[in-house]
Amino acid sequence: MSTLESRIRRKSLLKKVVPVEDTIQYFKNGMNLGWSGFTPAGYPKAIPIALADHVEKNNLQGKLRFNLFIGASVGAETENRWAQLDMIDRRWPYQTGKDIAKGINEGRIRMGDRHLSLFAQDLGYGFYTKDETGKGKIDIAIIEVSAVTEDCGLVLTSSCGVVGEILAIADKIILEVNTGQPSFEGMHDIVMSQDPPHRQPYLISKASDRIGTTYVPCDPDRIIAVVESKHRDKGRAFAEQDDTSEAIAANILDFFAHEVKAGRLPKNLLPLQSGVGSIANAVVGGLAKGPFYNLSVYTEVLQDTMLDLFDSGRLDFASSCSLSLSETPGFPRFFDNMDKYKDKIVLRPLSIANAPEPIRRLGCIAMNTPIEFDIYAHANSTLVGGTRMINGIGGSGDFLRNAYLSIMHTPSARPTKTDPTGITCVVPKAPHIDHTEHDLDVLVTEQGLADLRGLAPKDRAQEIINKCAHPDYKPILQEYFDLAKKTCLAKGIGHEPQLFDRCFKMQMNLAAKGTMKVDNWDI
Amino acid sequence: MSTLESRIRRKSLLKKVVPVEDTIQYFKNGMNLGWSGFTPAGYPKAIPIALADHVEKNNLQGKLRFNLFIGASVGAETENRWAQLDMIDRRWPYQTGKDIAKGINEGRIRMGDRHLSLFAQDLGYGFYTKDETGKGKIDIAIIEVSAVTEDCGLVLTSSCGVVGEILAIADKIILEVNTGQPSFEGMHDIVMSQDPPHRQPYLISKASDRIGTTYVPCDPDRIIAVVESKHRDKGRAFAEQDDTSEAIAANILDFFAHEVKAGRLPKNLLPLQSGVGSIANAVVGGLAKGPFYNLSVYTEVLQDTMLDLFDSGRLDFASSCSLSLSETPGFPRFFDNMDKYKDKIVLRPLSIANAPEPIRRLGCIAMNTPIEFDIYAHANSTLVGGTRMINGIGGSGDFLRNAYLSIMHTPSARPTKTDPTGITCVVPKAPHIDHTEHDLDVLVTEQGLADLRGLAPKDRAQEIINKCAHPDYKPILQEYFDLAKKTCLAKGIGHEPQLFDRCFKMQMNLAAKGTMKVDNWDI
Repeated sequence: MSTLESRIRRKSLLKKVVPVEDTIQYFKNGMNLGWSGFTPAGYPKAIPIALADHVEKNNLQGKLRFNLFIGASVGAETENRWAQLDMIDRRWPYQTGKDIAKGINEGRIRMGDRHLSLFAQDLGYGFYTKDETGKGKIDIAIIEVSAVTEDCGLVLTSSCGVVGEILAIADKIILEVNTGQPSFEGMHDIVMSQDPPHRQPYLISKASDRIGTTYVPCDPDRIIAVVESKHRDKGRAFAEQDDTSEAIAANILDFFAHEVKAGRLPKNLLPLQSGVGSIANAVVGGLAKGPFYNLSVYTEVLQDTMLDLFDSGRLDFASSCSLSLSETPGFPRFFDNMDKYKDKIVLRPLSIANAPEPIRRLGCIAMNTPIEFDIYAHANSTLVGGTRMINGIGGSGDFLRNAYLSIMHTPSARPTKTDPTGITCVVPKAPHIDHTEHDLDVLVTEQGLADLRGLAPKDRAQEIINKCAHPDYKPILQEYFDLAKKTCLAKGIGHEPQLFDRCFKMQMNLAAKGTMKVDNWDI
Repeated sequence: MSTLESRIRRKSLLKKVVPVEDTIQYFKNGMNLGWSGFTPAGYPKAIPIALADHVEKNNLQGKLRFNLFIGASVGAETENRWAQLDMIDRRWPYQTGKDIAKGINEGRIRMGDRHLSLFAQDLGYGFYTKDETGKGKIDIAIIEVSAVTEDCGLVLTSSCGVVGEILAIADKIILEVNTGQPSFEGMHDIVMSQDPPHRQPYLISKASDRIGTTYVPCDPDRIIAVVESKHRDKGRAFAEQDDTSEAIAANILDFFAHEVKAGRLPKNLLPLQSGVGSIANAVVGGLAKGPFYNLSVYTEVLQDTMLDLFDSGRLDFASSCSLSLSETPGFPRFFDNMDKYKDKIVLRPLSIANAPEPIRRLGCIAMNTPIEFDIYAHANSTLVGGTRMINGIGGSGDFLRNAYLSIMHTPSARPTKTDPTGITCVVPKAPHIDHTEHDLDVLVTEQGLADLRGLAPKDRAQEIINKCAHPDYKPILQEYFDLAKKTCLAKGIGHEPQLFDRCFKMQMNLAAKGTMKVDNWDI
């Protein structure tokens, strides 16, 4: 028996196995497609690549365009290549890649950016893909699986994403059985959410609680084809720490120690959520050498450093929506030691991993990197300069709004071509706001940590300028804040002083002169 | 036996009953005070009024100042009078009143504005009132009660607020037993939340589910005094509907009918959350005459119109944090018919009423009024002109972020002194953002309803301009949007086009010329 045959335990599906090229006939211009996958993990690869090859070979650029609904971003060889070939009309709710971002910012691709937990449920409700009767409809679902059970349960691979929601509204289903890597069977905990008013509690009281099945139930009659895939996930390369990210991580670890001492955090902290990138890696790296044991993680993405945290003996358990390791060395390291890690990790659907209910109940510590934040603690996570999309809000709002402690961390300044600190990440007013002043507890840069709990806006602004701003910008920000205070308080309109004729002067200075260092605050 | 004696079933407390004046000695400058109450309902009145009289009589203005932590706003005769007498330093997390707003906007009162559900838990965690050891501490709690049980359980009055969280960190407790109105005993459903990692699920699957006790457990040794009060809540006057609010309500009811027809809402809708004010009253008034039966309400404030909805035979049950009726005719009407309403209403602590967990599970329909929203669906709920505090964000974020449908409604324009439509409530960019584009599904004015589900930013902007803007502003907004699109798309930075050198031109025009009707979009 081949590996493929042994993985497809629902034997009636064996007759639906076809070469990947045979699936191309099903895809028509304008269709709504739902893919498995979340961050570059667990997404279909064989069919999207075959479709891209088909478009390229037959000069169908712009003639075979799809609406893509996927848990989050997927590998560049799929969504970014599709963007290059003008194969995407709508893309929900998050993406990664130079060409797809270009398509979005030049107006060719329509991207919807939504809190991931809301995306999951709204997709299932049919809010995004209404057919003529008003019901939600996905034309074709493409799902990567490790295996199919006897009862046609889909055993997923390295992520759960929104597979349940997609299957609920999918007309046709195509499976990619990935035999190029070990099976992930046993690692998933799947709950098929009911819609209100029939939704039931998610009885998760610690990261390791299991409440569902290890597979996603699937209607075999809607499966029109099964293909074999041997492609591995094109995982993100590991983001190296630098001095700045190390300094930020040190500030955060000091803060944790302080909170434990004050009795506001237990000795093993609370379940950690950590975003992606060099600062997140530095924080997890710091924890792997730190004084806290019996840690747990409740998050949406597990990266390579989490394996280090397990290996350090400090991490007991991790719950996530995806296992998003690097192509090398992450995944080979995981597969070589699967027995060691497997029972300590659970992969959950996005609708559970990012649900406010368990995040708030567990009291997560949420840590994410914004593009910038302002002196009153509003953060911009999505649009550079207020208009240019990077990736999307992802799950940052799900975690920051519901955490026990909401932490955002960023370098205090970034370089431009002409000025090593030409961009300040602490601004008078964020040009786009994804997280509000009502949401964030703690802001951190390599300069220091501002604990904003219990501070009113003007006290908050002073604390942020004092603790977080880069020295090059501290006097500039202070001057703005003092001027805004004086002007607004004199008029009796100064709960949160701003000067709307110049609050974006730094941003305009950057566009004109390549630095945010304004000479003065005159209009 | 007097009414007071019969209400105090914990007999050992009878010896702590004192005249209200005798409690003044306990209050010292700089203390943290926690009050019962939520919206002008269930707040202590006798002691706050006596303290105000004491300050006034002895010229102690500015010498006896407190930090006030209360579930939300309370009656003007207490917090607003305290503001007049300069008795407030910090005020968390919401307030109502001309003088308190003046104090906040002139910089004398430090107000913290936080999502109410987060305020409740953070107060209990001790994040706002740390003592020298870092623990949370309320110096004196003042709690209005209907009765005290044999086991020293506090039976609350017309609201639950954050009494549990206050008691958890209060040094001393003073009770006001309100014998001036019937007892509310039996209407409350109290759960004392544990802190993470020990928090348990809130097993509420419909508005009427009860999961707790009818009283708040209280340590009798910390009760230092009990006073009798006969003051009634100074409830909000009823906000009359007008043609505009009727037109907005009609748009919303049409939308509900459309969603039921499309199968996206059940025939009895889903649990309703409705804010306060004339539009909310018009919506509830419309429902009382509408085609939907077996309705339920899961909200934070019940107002007079809810009694009409009960009387119409269309409302089965209402869950709320407070019963915030008008002084007349609301409360007398309620008390005269208490038997009819009592079993159909449950009052919950703020930490449960506004918790994301039940709001999302039940799939509430959230409806709130902002100050304004922008063309990309960011809404300003708190700061007029971006800097001047009105009341606070309240629970709008708790409901809008977690609802099945998030709806915001406002008139399309408001008058200034010189122009009957001098203010547009649809602007290019909101000068302050409390609710983001990632949160809102539907925006409504008397002009029409914009269903934004599944729309990318530029499609969203066109829909909002088409459906919601006032005809006086439609061409002005369209011109801005077209110019911003052209400029940003040409530069490849146009996911969400804005022009930062003029996006607040309407606001500056208003300040200079008394109208937001700008002549042109030149810089």
